[in-house]
Amino acid sequence: MRFLSDNTAPACPEICDALVRANTGRVKSYGEDEWTRSLDRVFGDYFGHEVRVFPLVSGTAANALSLATLCPPYGVAFAHQGAHVVRDECGATEFFSHGARLALVPGASGRMTPEALIAALADMPISGHGMQPAALTLTQATELGTAYRPEQIAALTEIAHRHNLKVHMDGARFANAVTFLGCSPADVTWRSGVDVLSFGATKNGAMGAEAVVFFDPTLVRDFDFRRQRGGHLLSKSRYISAQLVAYVETGVWQRNAARANALARKVGAAAGDTLLYPVEANEIFLKLSSARTQALRAAGFEFHEAGNNGEIRLVVSWDQPEEEVDALCRALSPK
Amino acid sequence: MRFLSDNTAPACPEICDALVRANTGRVKSYGEDEWTRSLDRVFGDYFGHEVRVFPLVSGTAANALSLATLCPPYGVAFAHQGAHVVRDECGATEFFSHGARLALVPGASGRMTPEALIAALADMPISGHGMQPAALTLTQATELGTAYRPEQIAALTEIAHRHNLKVHMDGARFANAVTFLGCSPADVTWRSGVDVLSFGATKNGAMGAEAVVFFDPTLVRDFDFRRQRGGHLLSKSRYISAQLVAYVETGVWQRNAARANALARKVGAAAGDTLLYPVEANEIFLKLSSARTQALRAAGFEFHEAGNNGEIRLVVSWDQPEEEVDALCRALSPK
Amino acid sequence: MRFLSDNTAPACPEICDALVRANTGRVKSYGEDEWTRSLDRVFGDYFGHEVRVFPLVSGTAANALSLATLCPPYGVAFAHQGAHVVRDECGATEFFSHGARLALVPGASGRMTPEALIAALADMPISGHGMQPAALTLTQATELGTAYRPEQIAALTEIAHRHNLKVHMDGARFANAVTFLGCSPADVTWRSGVDVLSFGATKNGAMGAEAVVFFDPTLVRDFDFRRQRGGHLLSKSRYISAQLVAYVETGVWQRNAARANALARKVGAAAGDTLLYPVEANEIFLKLSSARTQALRAAGFEFHEAGNNGEIRLVVSWDQPEEEVDALCRALSPK
Amino acid sequence: MRFLSDNTAPACPEICDALVRANTGRVKSYGEDEWTRSLDRVFGDYFGHEVRVFPLVSGTAANALSLATLCPPYGVAFAHQGAHVVRDECGATEFFSHGARLALVPGASGRMTPEALIAALADMPISGHGMQPAALTLTQATELGTAYRPEQIAALTEIAHRHNLKVHMDGARFANAVTFLGCSPADVTWRSGVDVLSFGATKNGAMGAEAVVFFDPTLVRDFDFRRQRGGHLLSKSRYISAQLVAYVETGVWQRNAARANALARKVGAAAGDTLLYPVEANEIFLKLSSARTQALRAAGFEFHEAGNNGEIRLVVSWDQPEEEVDALCRALSPK
Repeated sequence: MRFLSDNTAPACPEICDALVRANTGRVKSYGEDEWTRSLDRVFGDYFGHEVRVFPLVSGTAANALSLATLCPPYGVAFAHQGAHVVRDECGATEFFSHGARLALVPGASGRMTPEALIAALADMPISGHGMQPAALTLTQATELGTAYRPEQIAALTEIAHRHNLKVHMDGARFANAVTFLGCSPADVTWRSGVDVLSFGATKNGAMGAEAVVFFDPTLVRDFDFRRQRGGHLLSKSRYISAQLVAYVETGVWQRNAARANALARKVGAAAGDTLLYPVEANEIFLKLSSARTQALRAAGFEFHEAGNNGEIRLVVSWDQPEEEVDALCRALSPK
Repeated sequence: MRFLSDNTAPACPEICDALVRANTGRVKSYGEDEWTRSLDRVFGDYFGHEVRVFPLVSGTAANALSLATLCPPYGVAFAHQGAHVVRDECGATEFFSHGARLALVPGASGRMTPEALIAALADMPISGHGMQPAALTLTQATELGTAYRPEQIAALTEIAHRHNLKVHMDGARFANAVTFLGCSPADVTWRSGVDVLSFGATKNGAMGAEAVVFFDPTLVRDFDFRRQRGGHLLSKSRYISAQLVAYVETGVWQRNAARANALARKVGAAAGDTLLYPVEANEIFLKLSSARTQALRAAGFEFHEAGNNGEIRLVVSWDQPEEEVDALCRALSPK
Repeated sequence: MRFLSDNTAPACPEICDALVRANTGRVKSYGEDEWTRSLDRVFGDYFGHEVRVFPLVSGTAANALSLATLCPPYGVAFAHQGAHVVRDECGATEFFSHGARLALVPGASGRMTPEALIAALADMPISGHGMQPAALTLTQATELGTAYRPEQIAALTEIAHRHNLKVHMDGARFANAVTFLGCSPADVTWRSGVDVLSFGATKNGAMGAEAVVFFDPTLVRDFDFRRQRGGHLLSKSRYISAQLVAYVETGVWQRNAARANALARKVGAAAGDTLLYPVEANEIFLKLSSARTQALRAAGFEFHEAGNNGEIRLVVSWDQPEEEVDALCRALSPK
Repeated sequence: MRFLSDNTAPACPEICDALVRANTGRVKSYGEDEWTRSLDRVFGDYFGHEVRVFPLVSGTAANALSLATLCPPYGVAFAHQGAHVVRDECGATEFFSHGARLALVPGASGRMTPEALIAALADMPISGHGMQPAALTLTQATELGTAYRPEQIAALTEIAHRHNLKVHMDGARFANAVTFLGCSPADVTWRSGVDVLSFGATKNGAMGAEAVVFFDPTLVRDFDFRRQRGGHLLSKSRYISAQLVAYVETGVWQRNAARANALARKVGAAAGDTLLYPVEANEIFLKLSSARTQALRAAGFEFHEAGNNGEIRLVVSWDQPEEEVDALCRALSPK
């Protein structure tokens, strides 16, 4: 019973159907296909805002290309200290930006606070001799399975914009957050001051599809050159874009997220006081005794440790069998 | 009737079947799946040699990551002046290598000659003040639709190794070349002195799958870190690797290439003396009058110009309808 | 009365004499001159250890080239959060290393503690998906004018080496620290586990001369190529090397540092309880009321603020007139 | 008798005097000194045009920082195939630009022709998939000791500007070229369409001083950040700037160049038909038999080979003793 990550899950039927439908005939490559050409319109409708959309195959590429576009090589991007760009991408942001720096901002439950951001900015003054503050990146849902409320995002982006930073959002689990919040995709993005979004579909039912969404077209700058130079302009773009169109248009983005979230919430409820953070997406973080962790593994549950202090992470996938979740709940319930 | 490129073609049934079969259950991500773990063995059998294989989604990434692994930032890679790495990848090699240089080697029909390589090496001496020769990259089939013979490759790699260069091969159309030559995959790679291969499947029936194949495991070095840093380690690697396994094991690599090659040869034969280079893969280059080029377009044929001198390129895809090829032959035949 | 920085000071007579003596005849360039060729010997004697020495014109270049040689692009260098490489070099380390990261380690009085280093290492585990710990950099004297004791250095380098990190020391004010400690240059470098040193002379009486000193010749790697590529191999190297030779051989390194340290100590003593850190080099940090800071400026003293909390920094140069120091002492003394 | 290079020469008295005069008191660092602050005015007068001037210590840094400012990472700079940036800087341009490419333009006697530039531009079309033409760099005097006439420069810059390229000039031996041409510094720079100049003084009597001169202030962009990040903003900038001011204001730029040029011309005249190119600066290129080359060395003359075909290069320094030149003339004269 695998609760390692939602990226272990297969593609959902709607995505597979879209791929089958796209798999016919000789169509123009490098983004000149009809699916890719429709992305600006499809995502424009989804977000209720003019957008420029670029399909990609990896979230790391989406984040790094976004931040490299917003940050000069001598720029600084402010990120939560536990962010994926900080901990799990092997320096992709530094690579694509040619050496920009990630300044770490602390914050409980995976969220940075306005106070912590202000302090971090104060500690990195704009001056001739230091690196120059350029961007803020927020993760939604956060790495600890929580979700920023729209007003929390707005408070942070307001600070960022006041300091002339542009704002990026890492939305690897964007659908899970939006679904939990019960808001619209617009509410936690452009309406709250987000300039560029890494929109993830891979973890929530796609075979492999991410998008960078620019809410301000002037920020696109040389994204296109950077993408190609990074080997991320795919010749057969149709297969990525067809997934993205289906993901948004069929509503599976919400259906898959809603199911995973609900099951995760169930697990969180069963976990009682071992639960570390509120379950606001599809991840559950627990603090178990070493004995209980071992017992869980012995019972056939697969999961990752989170950090060095005996904390563990369980992730519910969109297609996780209900019986696996029920078994997990039983295993976690206090005897 | 689209003869723009073989990357306009869809995925072939064997690839689609493999994807469907792979699309079940929650499997470990980031290359820990069974398909990715089998790649070294599957390609080891294919090449008759110990190999280390890394799945990727783009040929540009395969080339750039290979050359960046072989070349330090102050290194020089020798490439044919018309090579894809030179002309079509927006400087991906320079990007991934942190500034290595491509030294251009001329040569008729897309192939560099030993003499030209020797001259280029002589012009770029190893010294304290200049960049350091580090790699040779050959394209097989070449950008002009010709194929190096094994002994031609061996002659070039012998020169390269004598100068302490490592040898990379860009095999975006590797299957077309091998099928044309009637040799084994080994004959034009490790047996001829190739150290690292960009193995392409996308253009020849895959949905999107490339592989970097190291014939010398010690050259792998920090490839893995570079790949992740470049956003090219996919979480759902199974979908790339399953394509690669099917491509090699079902024999579609050869079947698709053989069909495309045969149809391209037919077109070449019909083209008469407008044919610029022998058709040794699935590409046909013609020199037509402006009037004939326009007439061809007016008749519904789509193709690219090649350079600035009225030359055109026609590419036959693995699934190109026979009637389209016949129509093209008729249109090209001297009246 | 300028207490802004010791880099405001002129060159001392011994350095000027050396430059005059070196300024004769046509001598080989790019380091083939006699002064540069003698550096390994001269510094070998100075440190009592085999060394490889490279002359440079800027401390930023010395630090960045050192760390780039020790850290791969996906590497992490651990640095005190207030270090010059972190705050004052506009990302030179990130630039020269092609994107390595500086992980910040806290610590009072400008010194990191073993506990803080261990915690930082624990927070940045070696794994396939993250950046890889590669180097530790220590500043001696620190940015707050304190000096690490040899045993403090040894404790930190022992941790570093146990984690397979190499150790760099930023010695922009190396002479001030060694002179304060009353130890030998060896005691705070190779004898305490330092692998590479940025040896500064500019701030302590040179016109412009720094050196990178490798105590382990195998670590030199491709330093030479990186230096040239960075525009830091000077054609007329003799003028840098002659300064370095004179600086070490005439003993001015110690005489200048001793004078500056003694005067700084005097200022520190006069400052009473406004003194923030012990004066162990030639820098004095004070916490003054806004009124007193203004009064000090009004009285003609020039100095920098240090941070945002009303702290100020005063630096005594090797040639600071005694009467300026006396005037400063009077101005700082409690009435 | 050393004719290896003009960078073997010492600093001339006017430069030394300027250094001595600048070596007094504690003056502001990092370019806030009076000499650096006067550079825009001093060079503005020298060129008869508004300029922005940045002092540097190496020609490689001047060239690389200039081109990196003009070229994005995916940009192409067109350079003569024998240019210093191509052959002698270990890829500094690629390093500082984060991977821009040098496209090589051929041309006899070290000069590119308009036809060759046009052909090179035609071969590197602006398109979505390739690197983007961004800059032209010309060397004045050229690497073969010839000088572009103002109208030759104008013809090339006109082509460049028509293609939206910016124009850089590598003026490591700028004074020699201007003095030979008998024109004003303006004639071969802004009046002929040059946007940015690497102005060299080191080879012509300075101790170590170069400058980047922007004739169009809007092109400065982020030069300042790049310079600091490259370790090329010196704390004691006064010592570089004082040299530059003296070099221009005392007229030694012209006096030194005139002397070196005249002596070189004498050598060229003596060389008879072994002379390869007209002597238009202070370099002489000869084609000698192997026996004569050996004889020359045996007679005590030091010089470099130029390429692999028995060609040699002799450079006359500003302070070359007349008797050495006479001896050389005798040795070269046909018996």
